[in-house]
Amino acid sequence: MYRTNTCGELNSNHIGQKVTLCGWIQRIRNLGGMTFIDLRDRYGITQLAFNMETNTELCEKARNLGREYVVQIKGKVAERFNKNKNIPTGDIEIIVDNIHILNASQIPPFTIEDNTDGGDDLRMKYRYLDLRRNTVQQNIIFRHQLAIEIRNYLNNIDFLEIETPFLIRSTPEGARDFVVPSRMNPGQFYALPQSPQQFKQLLMVASMDRYFQIVRCFRDEDLRADRQPEFTQIDCEMSFVTQEDVMNTFENLFKHLFIKLKNITFDTFERISYEQAMRLYGSDKPDMRFDMTFKELNQLLQHKDFKVFNQAESIIGICAQGCGTYTRKQLNELTDFVKRPQIGANGLVYILCLPDGSYKSSVDKFYTQKDLQAVATHCQAKANDLILILAGDKEKTQKALGELRLEMGNRLKLRDKNHFKPVWVVDFPMFEWDEETQRYYAKHHPFTSPKAEDMELLASKPEQVRANAYDLVINGVEIGGGSIRIHQHHIQKQIFSVLGFSDEEAQQQFGFLMNAFEYGAPPHGGIAFGFDRMCAVFNGVESIRDFIAFPKNNAGRDVMTNAPFEISNEQLNELFIDLKLPGDK
Amino acid sequence: MYRTNTCGELNSNHIGQKVTLCGWIQRIRNLGGMTFIDLRDRYGITQLAFNMETNTELCEKARNLGREYVVQIKGKVAERFNKNKNIPTGDIEIIVDNIHILNASQIPPFTIEDNTDGGDDLRMKYRYLDLRRNTVQQNIIFRHQLAIEIRNYLNNIDFLEIETPFLIRSTPEGARDFVVPSRMNPGQFYALPQSPQQFKQLLMVASMDRYFQIVRCFRDEDLRADRQPEFTQIDCEMSFVTQEDVMNTFENLFKHLFIKLKNITFDTFERISYEQAMRLYGSDKPDMRFDMTFKELNQLLQHKDFKVFNQAESIIGICAQGCGTYTRKQLNELTDFVKRPQIGANGLVYILCLPDGSYKSSVDKFYTQKDLQAVATHCQAKANDLILILAGDKEKTQKALGELRLEMGNRLKLRDKNHFKPVWVVDFPMFEWDEETQRYYAKHHPFTSPKAEDMELLASKPEQVRANAYDLVINGVEIGGGSIRIHQHHIQKQIFSVLGFSDEEAQQQFGFLMNAFEYGAPPHGGIAFGFDRMCAVFNGVESIRDFIAFPKNNAGRDVMTNAPFEISNEQLNELFIDLKLPGDK
Repeated sequence: MYRTNTCGELNSNHIGQKVTLCGWIQRIRNLGGMTFIDLRDRYGITQLAFNMETNTELCEKARNLGREYVVQIKGKVAERFNKNKNIPTGDIEIIVDNIHILNASQIPPFTIEDNTDGGDDLRMKYRYLDLRRNTVQQNIIFRHQLAIEIRNYLNNIDFLEIETPFLIRSTPEGARDFVVPSRMNPGQFYALPQSPQQFKQLLMVASMDRYFQIVRCFRDEDLRADRQPEFTQIDCEMSFVTQEDVMNTFENLFKHLFIKLKNITFDTFERISYEQAMRLYGSDKPDMRFDMTFKELNQLLQHKDFKVFNQAESIIGICAQGCGTYTRKQLNELTDFVKRPQIGANGLVYILCLPDGSYKSSVDKFYTQKDLQAVATHCQAKANDLILILAGDKEKTQKALGELRLEMGNRLKLRDKNHFKPVWVVDFPMFEWDEETQRYYAKHHPFTSPKAEDMELLASKPEQVRANAYDLVINGVEIGGGSIRIHQHHIQKQIFSVLGFSDEEAQQQFGFLMNAFEYGAPPHGGIAFGFDRMCAVFNGVESIRDFIAFPKNNAGRDVMTNAPFEISNEQLNELFIDLKLPGDK
Repeated sequence: MYRTNTCGELNSNHIGQKVTLCGWIQRIRNLGGMTFIDLRDRYGITQLAFNMETNTELCEKARNLGREYVVQIKGKVAERFNKNKNIPTGDIEIIVDNIHILNASQIPPFTIEDNTDGGDDLRMKYRYLDLRRNTVQQNIIFRHQLAIEIRNYLNNIDFLEIETPFLIRSTPEGARDFVVPSRMNPGQFYALPQSPQQFKQLLMVASMDRYFQIVRCFRDEDLRADRQPEFTQIDCEMSFVTQEDVMNTFENLFKHLFIKLKNITFDTFERISYEQAMRLYGSDKPDMRFDMTFKELNQLLQHKDFKVFNQAESIIGICAQGCGTYTRKQLNELTDFVKRPQIGANGLVYILCLPDGSYKSSVDKFYTQKDLQAVATHCQAKANDLILILAGDKEKTQKALGELRLEMGNRLKLRDKNHFKPVWVVDFPMFEWDEETQRYYAKHHPFTSPKAEDMELLASKPEQVRANAYDLVINGVEIGGGSIRIHQHHIQKQIFSVLGFSDEEAQQQFGFLMNAFEYGAPPHGGIAFGFDRMCAVFNGVESIRDFIAFPKNNAGRDVMTNAPFEISNEQLNELFIDLKLPGDK
């Protein structure tokens, strides 16, 4: 036993006890007669006291310790003269009578503090030091606690965690697979799962009834800021359920998690359709912490001589309360914002609602005060509000205004990270038409069932078919999505046909699942949540990286271990592969 | 809601209630006037009753259902005339008034019964049907329960489950890695982890203090009967601990699991050294459910004219109680057993202890009755016992006799699958000498710490250095193994040097870990358990496959999905690799 206690648990109840602690040297304060050391471990910080007069040798030894040295100390718990009410151990200190250096430390490349001086790259290279910082450590602990809560909750309602394989078959539908050459099967490859979708459906066919798994998934996509090539999913599936059953089950899970981990209670989560979400928020993952919903303005603005509006499919406005005092500079910033290539609007029309009840707009030469007042009334704008209007193709305009709405939400501080607003988005379309490849793609995935009432449109108007699909969105972040699946062979065949698969292709790629449907597949459905993202959203943080112990950078590299790396020719030969690098002929 | 209840929960308390059930048709019994159906789901079986007289049409419909059809039925719970005491629902049946066929089924390729008529290959191809069988389903449920118990136990004693990466760097030490070509880093590969060993040590350096993870690991080895290319490990690590601390922590975990899942209590687990285990049982994973320990016989048998014995390094015997009546045929079987190439003994010497106190042996021409009596006394053999003796190189003889001991244990039914005998094997040697490559290999792994008292032998007699390593063995199966790790840079360097690594090689391959040791690495140690194997051992089953939802066959193939499989040239090109198949030049 190296220690009797951790650095987080001693308090005034322990005064007088002899203790042994282990930990890292956080800080040394040499006050002349006295020296104080903050000793740190995962559980907290305990103050160590050394008196130059009573034990000179020991005090000298203490003063010569370096930051991040690992020590074992023995001493007696004593009441502290200057109590620190901010930490649980703040009432006591240890009068040390022995120090044993367990390991020395070089000077760390950045400070081990909440606000460190280390940049991103350095912290990633020395991630094992970054993880010593309390903020990062608390994130990792939160992640653990969230996982435990989820598992116990689901276990209590009869879900079984069942492990599915990681070395599976590559399927061309969906994102790009990571693949693994098989040494025992020359020329053949496994794929790493993008999700256990087909296995969880097979588990339903296997009558496992309720399945979940907190499981790593892999996607070989070009990485964006907040994407990782490997990520963790809470994957769930249930049999004999309707969409309503799945949503209720997981709404209850989230209510439980919010109470347990954030001490927040919720009534029923709001629900809106995909069509509403796009029409009112310009996003299928609306941030509903604030209102600022879209108002359609076509009727009010297409009767004058303003060509831009007259030619637009959609004219949509939002009302930013209290922004009627925006300066020319601020308005220009907003125009620049919507013109950024990621957003792609051609321009921004504004109407300032002045304190005297008059209006000033960027389209004053086309519209009268009365016209503008009609718009203001429709937008429920009052004096000192600002109306922002975009126009153009419907979908593009919705999306652009959705971004502007979020920007205004940020400016008006309407997106409080301690305020949580979950919403279910339902009634997604089944298919998306892709211009480039001239075919339909499944919006969710090809195993999603169409709504019974839309079945007759499947052959004639696939774009109008809605799916039994649902997303859970919190604060503008898609936390998870799911659907009721197809469980009948003939419907699955129909869907593959809409997606442009021949019967042979469907059979070759998904034959095992379609065959399984022939042997008594129950009605089933499920959902999958992005666990990394969930951790971030629960903590009001944008980056998922903060909740991953060893994340990769945007080039998919682990800079700490320097992976990926070359492998030997011997390894290549064993796997029956050769390199064919860009420079090679 | 498709159902009000499951097929496992209705009993006499529910009599008179209207219920809706869903499930699979297990069995239809047409008794003329009455038809009975066993409806099955994951939770149990409920009997459905149909009366030809009161509802002819429905009864006809019921009779025409096929095996494994999925149906939804509505009806009323009624008391059963012939109660079935073997199942929880045996007191009731459902008087059905409505059947709705949710999905039809083809005739399954094998019976969905505990004792199925399906062979291994067929069951693997239709694993989703195999998993419907109660025995297999119970295995998967057991696995889930075991995982939940482990997680909650470890969570309660401050262990954090921390996820480590799957796309890591390949290291040449150890078994063969599965590798993953990186599209974004041409010519470079990730490896899939054989274990999170280095990451868990880095987590200790990161002051996470107590880590665990139930995690998939991968080894590209030639598969033996009970090996899978992917397997699940319970991976654990602790800081500021001695070997004793780790062993006590996980001994308590196992005691908890045995109580919770098997209702068996244990006193302290036995402990034996590696040297003892080899000397007394001929195995570093001794089955201690029965005694039959080895007796060294060199002194008693090397004074006569029997060259085989005189030239042997070791002569060792075991006493098989009550086998003194073995026939010539039985003794020949044992001789054949030890001569099998896997065991490789040259012959077997036996001494039958006859009822009259005399002895009959296969070496009667070399030894007197008095010689044999001395052996019998030394082996504590009584009348009707059988002494079996092997001789030759010490290690080889120990191993061969170890196998024979297990065989005799089987014959004498001393290996009761409901009897559990855990034992810690400790004091493993640090290194093994490999004749072929003429170098030492780490017996555990290169991060294992040598015993302090053996440090001085490191340079001169590495083969005599013992490690702070320990295995947990239950019923002859190695359930897990661990060690106290090296936490100091200079000792790690020394070990790599014994293993024949140059400083550069060590730095190149393990630099990130060795560097981490320079920044205040705490003393730490841990253990990892084979989760698949643990599931099997807890259930007294040999095959781990029975506890894996979707296992692979001995060629590493998933015959259900037909993985691995060819990938497209487009995929190969994107990954900057080419095939180089055996036939290619």
